[in-house]
Amino acid sequence: MNNFVYDIPTKVYFGKNQIENNLGKELASFGKNVLLVYGGGSIKKTGLYDKVIKELKKENLKVTELSGIAPNPRVDSVREGGRICKEKSIDVILAVGGGSVIDAAKFMGAAAYYEGDAWDLSTRKADIKKCLPIVTVLTLSATGSEMDCGGVISNPETKDKLGRMERPMLPSVSFLDPENTFTVSKYQTACGAADILSHLFEVYFDMSKGFYMLDCFMEGLMKTVIKFTPIALKDPENYEARANLMWASSWAINGFINGGRNIEWSCHPIEHEVSAIYDITHGLGLAVITPRWMRYCLDDSTEDKFCQFGINVFDIDKSLPKKEIAEESIKRLESFLFETIGLDSDFKALNIDENTIKIMAKKACGGKHINGFKKLYAEDIEKILKNCL
Amino acid sequence: MNNFVYDIPTKVYFGKNQIENNLGKELASFGKNVLLVYGGGSIKKTGLYDKVIKELKKENLKVTELSGIAPNPRVDSVREGGRICKEKSIDVILAVGGGSVIDAAKFMGAAAYYEGDAWDLSTRKADIKKCLPIVTVLTLSATGSEMDCGGVISNPETKDKLGRMERPMLPSVSFLDPENTFTVSKYQTACGAADILSHLFEVYFDMSKGFYMLDCFMEGLMKTVIKFTPIALKDPENYEARANLMWASSWAINGFINGGRNIEWSCHPIEHEVSAIYDITHGLGLAVITPRWMRYCLDDSTEDKFCQFGINVFDIDKSLPKKEIAEESIKRLESFLFETIGLDSDFKALNIDENTIKIMAKKACGGKHINGFKKLYAEDIEKILKNCL
Repeated sequence: MNNFVYDIPTKVYFGKNQIENNLGKELASFGKNVLLVYGGGSIKKTGLYDKVIKELKKENLKVTELSGIAPNPRVDSVREGGRICKEKSIDVILAVGGGSVIDAAKFMGAAAYYEGDAWDLSTRKADIKKCLPIVTVLTLSATGSEMDCGGVISNPETKDKLGRMERPMLPSVSFLDPENTFTVSKYQTACGAADILSHLFEVYFDMSKGFYMLDCFMEGLMKTVIKFTPIALKDPENYEARANLMWASSWAINGFINGGRNIEWSCHPIEHEVSAIYDITHGLGLAVITPRWMRYCLDDSTEDKFCQFGINVFDIDKSLPKKEIAEESIKRLESFLFETIGLDSDFKALNIDENTIKIMAKKACGGKHINGFKKLYAEDIEKILKNCL
Repeated sequence: MNNFVYDIPTKVYFGKNQIENNLGKELASFGKNVLLVYGGGSIKKTGLYDKVIKELKKENLKVTELSGIAPNPRVDSVREGGRICKEKSIDVILAVGGGSVIDAAKFMGAAAYYEGDAWDLSTRKADIKKCLPIVTVLTLSATGSEMDCGGVISNPETKDKLGRMERPMLPSVSFLDPENTFTVSKYQTACGAADILSHLFEVYFDMSKGFYMLDCFMEGLMKTVIKFTPIALKDPENYEARANLMWASSWAINGFINGGRNIEWSCHPIEHEVSAIYDITHGLGLAVITPRWMRYCLDDSTEDKFCQFGINVFDIDKSLPKKEIAEESIKRLESFLFETIGLDSDFKALNIDENTIKIMAKKACGGKHINGFKKLYAEDIEKILKNCL
């Protein structure tokens, strides 16, 4: 274990009917003026919107609404949210939705304290020292945004998709009711699973030693996703499956698993370049890229970690030769992603041309390299992306 | 998963040299007057005392010391600490030590706000609605008191040993430097391991379903203790071993593993009665009681859980008959506790007579029963205790 500071004070109400009697009070503790942020309106169909509004009314809160936050949320929404926060003296932002809505809400909360263009908050031109309190009601198990301080914002004009983590953007309170994910489509459920797994892989596949306890935890989270995603696909209202996936999504990325590791992520920056241009679902992009990245990284120096993964997560017979176990572990993952949970296995449909791949590869490594599990230069990323076609 | 509220805002500085530059500032954020609480003075031998004092001086803090906190901390210390807190207008309590010191500090912090006898805080005659901020520097991986809101206080006059958990007593900041456990004796290291394992067993052995993710996490923590305790015993300055044990000790009992389970603990209340009278080390008492309790609970209805334990923690061949796996799992645990890490395997040395057993059994179940993994009445507990002789 390396040195680290563990500091995750997000309060989580987990379970059924926690919104009732708790949401309004928690919001009221921050003030009267609430900005309610949500997406395309599915929360109106499911009845969640009405439930939330009812709780806000109980406490006589003054609500301003900002809906229409897109998947891969855009900087325009952030600008609009920041403007409203200032204009209406917003005290707290309530994000009801998945990672996109919550990510956007975080940057709106930061924009409330910034006078320049909100895109500066994503490009790091501006510091993020303050943020309005963020309260979330989660409707999708995937990004973990409900319990971490990060967010990813897209700028369609510049074709950039930039992630940033800053402590002030950590949600103060999150409501995790697995029932709010019962209506999530099969496709989104599968993409969410791929996203959670990728958050784990980005940290787990690491050459440094000494993280046994956290490795065990990560393997447990991977097994949880692998066990319960097919159940949720088959039986969308299976509470146990939805509950385990929901809590796993938070813990895959809230920082606990790091143990002070300073590893750079690999698949996420690559995927961000793809979805910045092609606007595909983040989890799908990760699903396609991850096994290619793994195969690209697998060699004598990394074999042991793949064996550990294969034995502990997929229960592969440990008496087999190492090379075989390692390769089998990647095959098992592919079989899970592309057969069991039915995600597309390549980017053929996107018609990506070679030139775009060159540009994406260069941007993904920031012009230098990604210092992750294996060091990846632009030419390595190009090869990985070509293998995705 | 059941409904729960996750809310563990304790900030943890984990790793080497975190005390330097952080301890003084964190304390100063609460005020000027610090009550420094510690045990028998081993922290003076190891140099930790000097290091702490140096940091407090840097911030010009006014320090009052209260040393001599005993293992199985006594209510007298709590009374004394509460008195000092009031007299010296203490702003924050700094506990430097293991679970006993931290437990005592928590009740002192509560006593600071209570005018009656501090023992009332243990007997629940008095509410605990407020507590002074608690900062800890941990020197022993065992009780997890550094990241939970509980404590156990003994009253030698009444021969009571009472535990209580109250949210205001949760430490605000804890410093976990694995190097501060390098000097922990083999015996205390082994007892600490037994304590951590017991915290896990008390929650893990449960008939309710739906906690797959948390079960995986608990199994990972068990494997961590089983892997690293022998390493720490052989090589006390093995950083990796001490670090994994230290972080595991916090997570075994900070509440995360519960997932809203409302199960009553079994071995802890039984052990508390033994150590209230015989003043043995808590972890040793648990080590002796636990396998007897397991064997007493093992039947057709509980067999599956023991199989899960044996297969996932001790890697027992899952193709064996269930009954065999279940029994083997308990044998493996005994072999770990009494052979690998060398703890006493029974209470023979205590010369406990039958009458005392009757009294302890009755007190352990509060005159009714323990509603744990298996419902235990006084006569069940008597049998378990007799099996410990």
